[in-house]
Amino acid sequence: MDCPALLLLLLPFLAPGAAKALRPAVKAPGSLHLSTNPTSHRSVAQNYSVFYFQQKVDHFGFNNMKTFKQRYLLADTYWSKDGGSILFYTGNEGDIIWLYNNTGFMWDVAEELKAMLVFAEHRYYGESLPFGDDTFQDSRNLNFLTSEQALADYAMLIKHLQRTISGAEDQPVIAIGGSYGGMLAAWFRMKYPHMVVGALAASAPIWQFDHLVPCSKFMRIVTADFEKSGPNCSESIKRSWAAINRFANTSGGLQWLTETLHLCSPLTSEDVQHLKDWISEIWVNLAMVDYPYETNFLQPLPAWPIKIVCQYLKDLSVSDSVLLQNIFQGLNVYYNYSGQAKCMNISETTRTNYLGALSWSYQTCTEMVIPICTNGIDDMFEPHLWNLKEFSDECFKQWGVRPRPSWISALYGGKNISSHSNIVFSNGELDPWSGGGVTRDITDTLVAITIPEGAHHLDLRANNALDPPSVLLARSLEVKYLKRWIRDFYGSNRRQH
Amino acid sequence: MDCPALLLLLLPFLAPGAAKALRPAVKAPGSLHLSTNPTSHRSVAQNYSVFYFQQKVDHFGFNNMKTFKQRYLLADTYWSKDGGSILFYTGNEGDIIWLYNNTGFMWDVAEELKAMLVFAEHRYYGESLPFGDDTFQDSRNLNFLTSEQALADYAMLIKHLQRTISGAEDQPVIAIGGSYGGMLAAWFRMKYPHMVVGALAASAPIWQFDHLVPCSKFMRIVTADFEKSGPNCSESIKRSWAAINRFANTSGGLQWLTETLHLCSPLTSEDVQHLKDWISEIWVNLAMVDYPYETNFLQPLPAWPIKIVCQYLKDLSVSDSVLLQNIFQGLNVYYNYSGQAKCMNISETTRTNYLGALSWSYQTCTEMVIPICTNGIDDMFEPHLWNLKEFSDECFKQWGVRPRPSWISALYGGKNISSHSNIVFSNGELDPWSGGGVTRDITDTLVAITIPEGAHHLDLRANNALDPPSVLLARSLEVKYLKRWIRDFYGSNRRQH
Repeated sequence: MDCPALLLLLLPFLAPGAAKALRPAVKAPGSLHLSTNPTSHRSVAQNYSVFYFQQKVDHFGFNNMKTFKQRYLLADTYWSKDGGSILFYTGNEGDIIWLYNNTGFMWDVAEELKAMLVFAEHRYYGESLPFGDDTFQDSRNLNFLTSEQALADYAMLIKHLQRTISGAEDQPVIAIGGSYGGMLAAWFRMKYPHMVVGALAASAPIWQFDHLVPCSKFMRIVTADFEKSGPNCSESIKRSWAAINRFANTSGGLQWLTETLHLCSPLTSEDVQHLKDWISEIWVNLAMVDYPYETNFLQPLPAWPIKIVCQYLKDLSVSDSVLLQNIFQGLNVYYNYSGQAKCMNISETTRTNYLGALSWSYQTCTEMVIPICTNGIDDMFEPHLWNLKEFSDECFKQWGVRPRPSWISALYGGKNISSHSNIVFSNGELDPWSGGGVTRDITDTLVAITIPEGAHHLDLRANNALDPPSVLLARSLEVKYLKRWIRDFYGSNRRQH
Repeated sequence: MDCPALLLLLLPFLAPGAAKALRPAVKAPGSLHLSTNPTSHRSVAQNYSVFYFQQKVDHFGFNNMKTFKQRYLLADTYWSKDGGSILFYTGNEGDIIWLYNNTGFMWDVAEELKAMLVFAEHRYYGESLPFGDDTFQDSRNLNFLTSEQALADYAMLIKHLQRTISGAEDQPVIAIGGSYGGMLAAWFRMKYPHMVVGALAASAPIWQFDHLVPCSKFMRIVTADFEKSGPNCSESIKRSWAAINRFANTSGGLQWLTETLHLCSPLTSEDVQHLKDWISEIWVNLAMVDYPYETNFLQPLPAWPIKIVCQYLKDLSVSDSVLLQNIFQGLNVYYNYSGQAKCMNISETTRTNYLGALSWSYQTCTEMVIPICTNGIDDMFEPHLWNLKEFSDECFKQWGVRPRPSWISALYGGKNISSHSNIVFSNGELDPWSGGGVTRDITDTLVAITIPEGAHHLDLRANNALDPPSVLLARSLEVKYLKRWIRDFYGSNRRQH
């Protein structure tokens, strides 16, 4: 049961666990129900239309003539045919409507940029399933789930839009994405610079592959987030693993853990590692979504959720049992802020149905091989080496494929990307994925923006009264670059005509 | 029988006809045996070693774990680990040893650039057959024959060389190729700029797709070559089609044509179009290889072969029968300069076995869709429209696939490539493919070099005493750019360390 741990550590990358529906149920600690419910500052309805575009299932071969319908959303409230632009969201590993609802930034800048907004759903996610209901019936159907195919989809979709929407043809397109979608935005500008004048790649860990950054970096950032969110917080968590182990080894301990942690199923000794992985993943998820206001992205959460968690984890002098009761309170902040969960189901760390956990698992087993490790000294987790062999075997068992860990850097350039241009890499310093992101300018046109108080692509979220100044500054810088690319496009176009 | 004509018009792109072996036989006009046999100026043996590298058959999917052996040649006579470079030939549609033997330029500059030379064979050509002897048994096996797969092969091979050859790791790699290989060199720099510091794309018609240039351009250049190679030459050829038609319509005319043109098989009325296509293709081939000295690329040929052809086609006052006898003499210059051919086989326009005609035919039926047309007014051919539908149907019949004519420009940018850098596009003005090439500078680092007296990638051939000054100038400019890229690489590397 070692490998699922490794898988679990990856899945937080916005796609944890197997995507099972959980029956909603009872109560969480009432004290956690914060009422910060920020309202949007805008009055215009943020309407979109839903469209479908016929894509080839295989862009890179000619035997297979099959096509599928890719879903995309289009919003042209603020679009102008005269001097306007097209902001193209390069969809990532989830339902595009859910991603749309968490990417208010694009609406917030649409008017200023006279922009048409397009949100393209990534193949194998949401409704864009190349083999319909059979997509996951046979893992061979997943063969066409790669970043290259997704980028080709985006290229063909943009071509289609510019051919069919009058006025769109001679307008600059800008790719925007967050997380894996941020990588896609950056890679799209790198591979299809003729399609987009620039890319905003938010929280895009393009260097989290192939040991381009130390595998320890990710969990150290998670640890730092807890460290700075309350006294003794990360240290309490660090101690909790041994406490769990001690309980798990005593008679009655498993049952005590089951009750104390409100687990849905009785804990067995085989499940102990799984429990710890599940807890780890919740801490990781919290680090990703440690936003300054109440949100509902992976889960319904209070503002600054780690601070709330850390309120329970101040005291290092407590006994094992009190420590684990406090850990439960902490987990509950994440798992049950809405008060809907009757018990803790350690098979899932998010209850959203919008994430494509199956597809993402396949992607991590093929191209998106992300080494993550811990040593238990510089981070608050149990030591865990990165073991490619085990990981590969697990992938083979699960999907019948083996990862190709160096492919992404061979394909997209690894750290050697300075010949590209017009990409803004933004990263929140609270976000563990910033460890694999571009956090320093590479050239004048490959620039890094860091957001000290930002978690995972906070900048792509809608403006909010509780936004820290650093994200407001980041957004205004981003807009400055977007406008520059648009201006340059019209400038050079005018010169040509 | 209309469509094979279209196919034939494409195949001159270095891969005509079906690759059948022809039994060598008797005599051609002795007067054509010129003795200009240029010797190389160098004394060092141009030795290479042959290697094989295990490649994935499918770089873009994970179901298929099959691999194949890609052949490559390596020559390190002049290579220096200190300040050296790697010149990487991006193989095109033929046996790599044959291409090596026609790319003396790389040897000629190796010493000056302290360069290792690598010649990579394109998959599905030469010995690099992904399915071995079965490669062409089932057309579904050709599914992995695309330019994208070939570029990925090159990327993986370079990675392998830099990992395994001590001293190669920190050296600049430059892609060099001609014709389709020139397109690959340019596209490689566009798509994998982290792998190569620049590309020399010789006679690379990257705009010959998707109507980026008029489909008439190609045959007009062919016509111009004949026009300027002798008085009345192109006009004689223009008149020959009607003469053929008139003979074909008279009793005994088919037999007369068979005898006069020394055809291997009796001409039937169904074959007349095929005969004219075959003749057209020979004129096209001559335009491609109209080199200033005796060569043996597609065929053994005299220096300036079109001038020799045109010696037979000066007189417009001749009768149909004399005209066609003269046409035969002209064809013979191309077809039988070596005196080996007993008769004219209209199923082939080259007797080299090194060209991968089958594979190239598949490529033209999938990605490499090259519209070519004539109107019989501005060119010396019979009018012929470009008919995608017919072409597609023919492809489907032959290979079970249909072309995707806009894909190449969607993938590689069409005319919108200004965001790339460090590519030299060289074109000979005699070369019909220059019509689809980049013949004007796009930016400071995307530069065009034109060679007025140059045919198809003359600049990539070895230095020769009979080289016109324009190709010497082109080569020296090319070396200047190669050296600049190498210098820039070491300059920026030094800054980084």
